[in-house]
Amino acid sequence: MSIKEEVVKKAKAAHKAARKLANLNTNLKNQALLAMADALEENVDKIFAANKKDLEYGKDKGLSEALMDRLLLTEERIKKMANGLRAVEQFDDPIGEVLEMKKRPNELQIGKVQVPLGVIGMIYEARPNVTVDAAGLCLKSGNAILLRGGSEAINSNKAVAEVISKAAYENGIPEGAIQLVETTDREAVQVIFGLNEYLDALIPRGGPGLIQAVVNNSTVPVIETGVGNCHTYIDNEADVVMAKDIIINAKTQRPGVCNAMETLLVHKDIAEEFLPEVIKKLQELDVEIRGDEIVQKLGTDIISATEEDWETEYLDYILAIKVIGSLEEAVDHIHKYNTKHSEAIITENYHKAREFLNVVDAAAVYVNASTRFTDGGEFGLGAEIGISTQKLHARGPMGINELTTTKFVIYGEGQIRE
Amino acid sequence: MSIKEEVVKKAKAAHKAARKLANLNTNLKNQALLAMADALEENVDKIFAANKKDLEYGKDKGLSEALMDRLLLTEERIKKMANGLRAVEQFDDPIGEVLEMKKRPNELQIGKVQVPLGVIGMIYEARPNVTVDAAGLCLKSGNAILLRGGSEAINSNKAVAEVISKAAYENGIPEGAIQLVETTDREAVQVIFGLNEYLDALIPRGGPGLIQAVVNNSTVPVIETGVGNCHTYIDNEADVVMAKDIIINAKTQRPGVCNAMETLLVHKDIAEEFLPEVIKKLQELDVEIRGDEIVQKLGTDIISATEEDWETEYLDYILAIKVIGSLEEAVDHIHKYNTKHSEAIITENYHKAREFLNVVDAAAVYVNASTRFTDGGEFGLGAEIGISTQKLHARGPMGINELTTTKFVIYGEGQIRE
Repeated sequence: MSIKEEVVKKAKAAHKAARKLANLNTNLKNQALLAMADALEENVDKIFAANKKDLEYGKDKGLSEALMDRLLLTEERIKKMANGLRAVEQFDDPIGEVLEMKKRPNELQIGKVQVPLGVIGMIYEARPNVTVDAAGLCLKSGNAILLRGGSEAINSNKAVAEVISKAAYENGIPEGAIQLVETTDREAVQVIFGLNEYLDALIPRGGPGLIQAVVNNSTVPVIETGVGNCHTYIDNEADVVMAKDIIINAKTQRPGVCNAMETLLVHKDIAEEFLPEVIKKLQELDVEIRGDEIVQKLGTDIISATEEDWETEYLDYILAIKVIGSLEEAVDHIHKYNTKHSEAIITENYHKAREFLNVVDAAAVYVNASTRFTDGGEFGLGAEIGISTQKLHARGPMGINELTTTKFVIYGEGQIRE
Repeated sequence: MSIKEEVVKKAKAAHKAARKLANLNTNLKNQALLAMADALEENVDKIFAANKKDLEYGKDKGLSEALMDRLLLTEERIKKMANGLRAVEQFDDPIGEVLEMKKRPNELQIGKVQVPLGVIGMIYEARPNVTVDAAGLCLKSGNAILLRGGSEAINSNKAVAEVISKAAYENGIPEGAIQLVETTDREAVQVIFGLNEYLDALIPRGGPGLIQAVVNNSTVPVIETGVGNCHTYIDNEADVVMAKDIIINAKTQRPGVCNAMETLLVHKDIAEEFLPEVIKKLQELDVEIRGDEIVQKLGTDIISATEEDWETEYLDYILAIKVIGSLEEAVDHIHKYNTKHSEAIITENYHKAREFLNVVDAAAVYVNASTRFTDGGEFGLGAEIGISTQKLHARGPMGINELTTTKFVIYGEGQIRE
């Protein structure tokens, strides 16, 4: 079978299963989710054996320590994946909910019902947990899924997908609902990009390179996710103690994730009072500082920031700092460089807070809080399938509701159009 | 200026205007809409002069009668466009509405606010009224618009766009909010497909060729609209009098639109009783019938239906008819050939009605009514910008709410992530 044939065959099977999945009983879906969770825990040895292969191959290939850590599966991490499925079991089933229902003057009764998207394609990098999280959320929302993980994790993904799909099918989930593309050839991704007949949406999860490749090449509708060049603007009327705590949290609590701060903007009137201490503290925490001319004068070991720094999502212990003349200038900088993910202002001023919330164009806009909160769990959506940075369909953290669409159902008594 | 430069310049201007439009006062937008409506009526002579050029050119080019009729602007049609803008003025402004607001355990207050998409691109064919309708809906919902109409209507579109944008800008709408691409070169469309930096969504309106070209070539997120290969299934437990009225309405009341019926499916147990009279009546109304073998025996002058007939959206006085063994078979036929637009069942049976509503995958699913009702006005959405046949973002008739997205606004008091 050619690569194209393999991928199309799997997509077709998912498409076929999706029809049955759309009207599946909630209790049955929940039972399957619990069985999938148990199966993961019962098959740790099998999963470890597969994971070991990936780790060995990764070591030979010279993967970075961070990547190797992402690949690694431990008993605790498998338990976490299983508990993720148990958490999804607890969610309300969104499918079949009537969001509105109205009667028209001609007595037609028109309702809007929540239904699954159908088949969701996921293209992601080296985290095997995405395989489980995505399968669980899709199953609960009545969607079939076509998974395409990174080649580095292929053995782990295969083992995990086999374990959960076997448990799912044994518990009444239609065969074909969970599909993993097993070839690691890049051609498979090109094939997926053109599967409009079988896929209803494609969600990429990974670095900017992966996401841009999907956005630029897929004819299947894409939900763009994840890249976060996030800013925090410290207004001249900020509570400086609060500002300092928020900055340190937004930069250092977990710098490798998309909602971490990448650029700090500081109003010129408080730069001299505020920055020296903050820069020192950040440097103590191993953060490399890159700044404009004024910033460079307010500390030591500060690299001169270039245009590229304002554009970069470091995902690392690096922070760009710029001194800004006004709220308006801060907003202009943000709009010039941001990726529409998460932006924050720190201020005590009522009008500036409202202004910032109103005018900044991003998925999440904050007053007096760390951008690190942009997350499905923190926003109360339960689990998340990704963070949308586009405007169509969903924006910000996407939970189970964002894996649904609607259809109009119309109850008539013989109405015809005049 | 090259074609690319012209198009990019207009998109940039729209993008710039969109920032201001997003926070525009509702009263100001309403005043502008009324001024635009008045300006259309005050400038009929100018618009007629431009329209005459298009009509002459169309005549030379040998456009079909139907296309010539679409192109033609009359005093009545201009009044209708103006009244469309007045109707939009009456709509509630969707922008700024807080759709939900909750408090998290850490006291963060997280709200979801309705905001404009930003800049919407419209690629459409030869109806100058789309220029006005789309501009009005986008303006009310705080979006800038980049219009690209068919070359046949270019002079009419230019005149109309000039009249309404002048009136808009004179009434406080930011300059640049309404952009018409004036070159008729096809290269302009290729440029639009890649304007991800400036456009937030692209909506094609027209025939299947246009829509497929946009879906297959645009990297800007597309909302696929309009193609409707709609079915009506007459169950063996149907009220045959009602069924007949609905069929005639769905096929002949306005066959050239996307919600008209294209294929009739009839249960085998009532085919002999039901079809002869219906076929005769349809033929009297100039409908050409194409049918399977059984259908051909139940009337005269019936052409043998081919695979192509089941696939075709005729948009004409042609109907394909197939005799079907069961509800399940009808659903299978629909899923094989439909474009996920509008599908109907005619039945008196409670269970079959519910089954059809549940399992059929389409934007609008009907029991005992004509598919012709799938329309923003008929569904109570006010005006419509198109009918989405995809599942992401919007499904079915799209009104002003479908031209919006959301953003999360987060009110903190210094919260940091643990």
